[in-house]
Amino acid sequence: MELCGKDFSFSAGAVCSGLRCDVLVSGIVTENELSMCQGLSAVVVPYAGIPDRTSQVLSRHPGIQLHSIHHNAVSTAEMAVTLMLAASKQIIPADRSMRKGDWTPRYSPQGLIIEDSRILVLGYGAIGSRVGTICRAMGASVKGVRSRKDHGFHTAADLTVLLPETDILIVCLPLNDSTRGIIGKKELDLLPRGAVLVNIARGPVVDEEALFESLSSGHLGAAGIDVWYNYPDSEESRESTPPSRFDFGSINNVVMSPHRGGSFGLPGIERRRIEHLAAIIQKLYFSIIKDNSCRNEY
Amino acid sequence: MELCGKDFSFSAGAVCSGLRCDVLVSGIVTENELSMCQGLSAVVVPYAGIPDRTSQVLSRHPGIQLHSIHHNAVSTAEMAVTLMLAASKQIIPADRSMRKGDWTPRYSPQGLIIEDSRILVLGYGAIGSRVGTICRAMGASVKGVRSRKDHGFHTAADLTVLLPETDILIVCLPLNDSTRGIIGKKELDLLPRGAVLVNIARGPVVDEEALFESLSSGHLGAAGIDVWYNYPDSEESRESTPPSRFDFGSINNVVMSPHRGGSFGLPGIERRRIEHLAAIIQKLYFSIIKDNSCRNEY
Repeated sequence: MELCGKDFSFSAGAVCSGLRCDVLVSGIVTENELSMCQGLSAVVVPYAGIPDRTSQVLSRHPGIQLHSIHHNAVSTAEMAVTLMLAASKQIIPADRSMRKGDWTPRYSPQGLIIEDSRILVLGYGAIGSRVGTICRAMGASVKGVRSRKDHGFHTAADLTVLLPETDILIVCLPLNDSTRGIIGKKELDLLPRGAVLVNIARGPVVDEEALFESLSSGHLGAAGIDVWYNYPDSEESRESTPPSRFDFGSINNVVMSPHRGGSFGLPGIERRRIEHLAAIIQKLYFSIIKDNSCRNEY
Repeated sequence: MELCGKDFSFSAGAVCSGLRCDVLVSGIVTENELSMCQGLSAVVVPYAGIPDRTSQVLSRHPGIQLHSIHHNAVSTAEMAVTLMLAASKQIIPADRSMRKGDWTPRYSPQGLIIEDSRILVLGYGAIGSRVGTICRAMGASVKGVRSRKDHGFHTAADLTVLLPETDILIVCLPLNDSTRGIIGKKELDLLPRGAVLVNIARGPVVDEEALFESLSSGHLGAAGIDVWYNYPDSEESRESTPPSRFDFGSINNVVMSPHRGGSFGLPGIERRRIEHLAAIIQKLYFSIIKDNSCRNEY
């Protein structure tokens, strides 16, 4: 089996051009790059979310398998729980006060006790199921929504019934045409006043304006947001890129996190990435070897 | 059974004077108050930590039982986990940057993955055991220290061996003569560089100066601190009481929380307080009734 890798600095074309290549490890894959890899059997995206462009290109090549890896499900689930707790317990405004010697948040009880909370995990996959396990260990009542009707789970069709009895909504859905804006004004209004929202998936799964309005009005009690609507498009702009067209930085009841759920670059994560990549490549190796043996038999 | 209650605005004397009183519910109890309660069998402190003064007074009256309640163990354990996560994932500086559109924390990987962490819970009682359960659900390796040598637990005598292999130290000990300053410079130095410390017990269990120095130098990677060294002594001073003689507010790697672990005043907590008080008073009622029956039999 020939393996072809592409990192952030090289195009697959530069690495693979003219090579026989069974497996291409790459995030963004173009039609041109595919044409340069001879005999390609599979593309492996070396992270969790498959980019739209890659899905679209691969959909025109049904003979090439498309895989991604869930090496960062653990750290993303940890970030979801972190943001849930930080938002529910008002850690940001309390810290800001204490730095000035102001203890008043101690004497104005607010926030949720997780053990008493009804938690809805929207997207109960590799990340969502870990979030659910941790929340249950805290004594919360947890329900999960999946895209298919599986035993013990709900689907998005049940949201109008589920949201009014949800204290904490945790969004773990992949972004695609059917999930974009799935949490909009109507859905946020259905949550009880004071509810907490966490998004560690992709910003646009939650409607940008509806989220800002609901937080500003205080209908949403708090939110922990790791994923946004506007990202730095270059290294130079990393220090000055507002994450939204709305001024989330001006409101107290949001915890703002710079898309770090995946913990990109942490040693524990890069070790997991290699382990997950090795596992999937080994699996593909045996399936391709098997294909070749079969081919040789006839 | 006669029951005597004292809230924050009345002295027990004012309520109980001259009364026969089997059980006194009160936090701070004086010798004078005890003398006014005729036939007292038990004092119940309506919260978790028994004040030093009360312990001292009651130690001179071995015939009077002393109880406290653990109604806020759940919320205090939740605060411990919240501060552990917020400190480990650098939620405070990341939020502060994002409010200015600065995404740089996304590109400078730091912090701990809980699943990969070795956690030591110092004080494995009503609170610590809940913390341990939640951390294990996150996949962490958890060890517990108790005052007595129980099966599966360590004692403080093992700290010099345990601390060098501890990534996250969570302090849940009551404050008394044997725990005051139990975590000092020597103990913090034994932790590996970058370790995280959480204190939700009482400030002076951790040495004030050693904590500030270790955080400032970066030996401690981060800390989540709910309990302090200096408290407001009046309603007027709540807005301007520095929690320490050191300027914790000037350092980035601390999460400062105004002693809210107990979630005093939240509906869920006050409901639990009443339930726990009712349970212990019921238990005392039956034991006192039994005593009286016995007395009547002879």
